Amino acid sequence: MVDIACLLESERRMVEEALDRCLPLEGEYPPRIHEAIRYSALNGGKRIRPILTLAATRALGLDATRVVKAACALEFIHCCSLVLDDLPSMDDASVRRGKPTTHRVFGIATAILAADALLMHAFKLVADNGVETGADGPTVARAIRDVATAVGSYGMVGGQHVDLEAAKQDAIDPATLDYIQSRKTGALFVASATIGGTLWGTGEERLAPLADYSRHLGLAYQIVDDLLDVEGDVGTVGKDVHQDADKGSFVTVHGLEGAREAARNLGSLAKAALDEFEGDPETLGQIVDFCLSRTC
Amino acid sequence: MVDIACLLESERRMVEEALDRCLPLEGEYPPRIHEAIRYSALNGGKRIRPILTLAATRALGLDATRVVKAACALEFIHCCSLVLDDLPSMDDASVRRGKPTTHRVFGIATAILAADALLMHAFKLVADNGVETGADGPTVARAIRDVATAVGSYGMVGGQHVDLEAAKQDAIDPATLDYIQSRKTGALFVASATIGGTLWGTGEERLAPLADYSRHLGLAYQIVDDLLDVEGDVGTVGKDVHQDADKGSFVTVHGLEGAREAARNLGSLAKAALDEFEGDPETLGQIVDFCLSRTC
Repeated sequence: MVDIACLLESERRMVEEALDRCLPLEGEYPPRIHEAIRYSALNGGKRIRPILTLAATRALGLDATRVVKAACALEFIHCCSLVLDDLPSMDDASVRRGKPTTHRVFGIATAILAADALLMHAFKLVADNGVETGADGPTVARAIRDVATAVGSYGMVGGQHVDLEAAKQDAIDPATLDYIQSRKTGALFVASATIGGTLWGTGEERLAPLADYSRHLGLAYQIVDDLLDVEGDVGTVGKDVHQDADKGSFVTVHGLEGAREAARNLGSLAKAALDEFEGDPETLGQIVDFCLSRTC
Repeated sequence: MVDIACLLESERRMVEEALDRCLPLEGEYPPRIHEAIRYSALNGGKRIRPILTLAATRALGLDATRVVKAACALEFIHCCSLVLDDLPSMDDASVRRGKPTTHRVFGIATAILAADALLMHAFKLVADNGVETGADGPTVARAIRDVATAVGSYGMVGGQHVDLEAAKQDAIDPATLDYIQSRKTGALFVASATIGGTLWGTGEERLAPLADYSRHLGLAYQIVDDLLDVEGDVGTVGKDVHQDADKGSFVTVHGLEGAREAARNLGSLAKAALDEFEGDPETLGQIVDFCLSRTC
């Protein structure tokens, strides 16, 4: 596991630099909103989504250097979702990645506006990379549609909505939990793994195994996150722990051992999807092992 | 003024039907978020932005029927901004277009999520129309960038942020007010007037007079809105009146007569911009007169 850990850490540093370069500078007018944007995005996350974009693009045999902006776009969308999830009207979280949440520092209104600005910035970056890869009109349109769908009411936003509705109930049924996690986490993982191929004009059929792989990886990753939420403490996890205890998480529904087993099964499904993949599956398989190694 | 009033009313009805067709159906899962989306978007607005898209596209001699979705996209973005502006953390408004605001009916979290879902839906629609007009990759990318820039931290979101910051001060200076209104209203008017031409591949140079025209029209329109806010009552205006009284509006900064004069001047500037326009300026000029006729 040493090699993949080193590789992912080196990728993470490269992504971190790219994220910084892709954002407006802190002093740009209006300064406070740009400060909030940078605060919300440059905060030491694990950067698994953009790493996945770059790894999947390389696995397809394509030039990943021309989809770095799109990779960053997916991370900015993830950061946007974290800012919104943490709001008092949603999870009301006070700590994220070891620091006060955006609304605690900048106020609720600025947090909401910074989140939407990050979202808009993401679409600009995807459009930019459509030009960099020389994609034709339908291809750029498809990339934009894919990302918008992953985020919108049939994707991440829909998942978050159902999650909040479910939190008002006494118990959550497994089907609803599957819906929530496939939309809140799975949809953005799929978009992350396929956006590079899409921007290079790869057909949907060749991307289908990557979509399956990343959907399962995303769900496994989420369950590992839930496990860390229960097992960890705020010093090591970097956010409010046990904050999901009154919400339906995989651990509350299926128990610790059930959740560990589910994560391992999803990891196996992710690897099995790679059997159908026309490309180099090695790094993608190692990413699965690495994600599971955090707790399983 | 009878002819243009009839024309705009007929356009408004056509747009209203298109908006309805473009949205997810109310029963679609998750139902409550789709209900909130439709509640926020289908509420009898004046639809000036999509009407402007269609009128400007026709004025360029281009087929407006293939940019109807993009026209709707700009209205959905406007509706998104209204939902967010009305939130308790922002203007804390209770009535919008004669009905309770979205967060009063659906709760704050669902309102925020519905607003972002509308935004995502808008990007899908612009991408769709990029395919319908047969635009090439750089053209679709340009359309997406234009819209994302109009909405993001240098556009609408930036304007709203500065507006909220300014509301905390005792007084607002004219330069800040100009910034706010050019970003909160002007940016989306410019995007509305130019998106059709952009999707049909019209060069930026030919669109520049349309951009000038719509920027001035947008500012005039906003001032008329401020005047109605002071002069009207909730029954005719359809939102909380006097809600801008403690915020910097053109009327509070420049007085009633100063605001009326500014609106007339902006109307003249909008019309003057049409002198440079290579296309048919007639309807666009009439739209200026119609907007001003509401109060000036």
